[in-house]
Amino acid sequence: MSLETISENRSCGGVQGVYRHASDATGTDMTFGLYLPPAAQRGPVPVLWYLSGLTCNHENAMTKAGAQEHAARAGLALIFPDTSPRGEGVADDDAFDLGQGAGFYVNATEAPWAPHFRMWDYITSDLPKLVLDNFPLQAEAQGITGHSMGGHGALTMAMRLPDQFRSVSAFAPIANPTESDWGQKQFGAYLGQGREAWRAHDASLLMAEQGYPGEVLIDQGSEDQFLDLLKPETLAAAMARRRQPSVMRMQRGYDHSYFFVNSFIGDHVDWHAERLKAKG
Amino acid sequence: MSLETISENRSCGGVQGVYRHASDATGTDMTFGLYLPPAAQRGPVPVLWYLSGLTCNHENAMTKAGAQEHAARAGLALIFPDTSPRGEGVADDDAFDLGQGAGFYVNATEAPWAPHFRMWDYITSDLPKLVLDNFPLQAEAQGITGHSMGGHGALTMAMRLPDQFRSVSAFAPIANPTESDWGQKQFGAYLGQGREAWRAHDASLLMAEQGYPGEVLIDQGSEDQFLDLLKPETLAAAMARRRQPSVMRMQRGYDHSYFFVNSFIGDHVDWHAERLKAKG
Repeated sequence: MSLETISENRSCGGVQGVYRHASDATGTDMTFGLYLPPAAQRGPVPVLWYLSGLTCNHENAMTKAGAQEHAARAGLALIFPDTSPRGEGVADDDAFDLGQGAGFYVNATEAPWAPHFRMWDYITSDLPKLVLDNFPLQAEAQGITGHSMGGHGALTMAMRLPDQFRSVSAFAPIANPTESDWGQKQFGAYLGQGREAWRAHDASLLMAEQGYPGEVLIDQGSEDQFLDLLKPETLAAAMARRRQPSVMRMQRGYDHSYFFVNSFIGDHVDWHAERLKAKG
Repeated sequence: MSLETISENRSCGGVQGVYRHASDATGTDMTFGLYLPPAAQRGPVPVLWYLSGLTCNHENAMTKAGAQEHAARAGLALIFPDTSPRGEGVADDDAFDLGQGAGFYVNATEAPWAPHFRMWDYITSDLPKLVLDNFPLQAEAQGITGHSMGGHGALTMAMRLPDQFRSVSAFAPIANPTESDWGQKQFGAYLGQGREAWRAHDASLLMAEQGYPGEVLIDQGSEDQFLDLLKPETLAAAMARRRQPSVMRMQRGYDHSYFFVNSFIGDHVDWHAERLKAKG
């Protein structure tokens, strides 16, 4: 599989790269960011997947979250995938929360989305294979986190694939999409109106039904302007009901922006590093 | 003087604000970012000015440098000014390195720039007055830093106004603009062809002629794509010749991007905090 280097910048003693490849999953070219810490010069390192939110591409978290400094210290690689397929031959919608930039981490089954919108397969299978083949990463020590729509992706992927994602956290995740306008609209478009297919993509339902074998960390800002759409209370209740080992923090005064993510990314990197290093 | 709040986000326990005001210096509305650390809730704090480079506005460093985390820890406020006046009535040029986004921190004397391009006065007089009147900042504990064109501004302002700027550092500064295409072109346009007026805006010449009463910290990437335009060697030689107390670090592998600034901003914040807290 061919891998094109778009850019590589020295960052916090390591290298922040941006790469492009032809994806089998989406049938398009896809661009992603990958940070290798200094420790990667000596051998394979654990890796943290960071899934971004609505409207983002591979670049937002890579430039705004400030994760590299912490990853360098902790000896963790970071991967910043795009949030959807893109390009002229790819379906889109005028709304910011549907189509390109809004893949919602599902495999679409409905027209016009089905041919390219296969972000579940892209993140869980296609891109892992590529990066594990091409970079010094420990396949057995992968964790996953994300923000908003990306927090939704991280939680659903970790719960459904716990052997692949050995640690999980989320920033202000879309926590109960089957009961929110951030979810019903997109699942209806991508997966069709049969709600049964939606259940596998709802973190609160997955938590109620199966939970996660490890511990779960969630940060949420108390002044988040999208609290009504995120519905953290449903997930919190499900975690409590299940006795899910977890830390859920409601951070006073923080909103939904990258200033919030940036403020706590260090805690999340440490959270994952501690758990992944025991696996590596 | 009226001060309009554009946004305020909780960040690292403090508040990252963006504000707009009518500037007497530039005769335009100006937008700036200001970060107050948690310590500002208890009383006035020292402040670090961050001057940005070509094409930037108030936002680039505010979102990409990752300075807030370190400023919160160190108890320092941060100010992120714009790099030029802007708007429809303001002169501009098609080139990225002249006109709007490229004020070069001088007071223009030549047409068409003279009416609004007064960034020296804006940064050293107009904006300090505004922020000291409106925020809990220690007037006697101000430091200054910046990147590229902003490093040029920081060094020239600190050397000419050492009682105002009690600590100084720079990232990849334009270090010898009177001998560079990043300098000759802009000084010719803004200040006219008489090179005598340029001398007060060249860090290497100021260093040779007067130096700085405190210590100077400079970081420069060894793989910076603009080394030929920045001319750090001229400034390094002037510092050595003068026996200027200083630290100049050539960081192996780093380029000119914000990944470079982000990698070392913590060291710079600590550098300023240590020196300013002795003044406050």
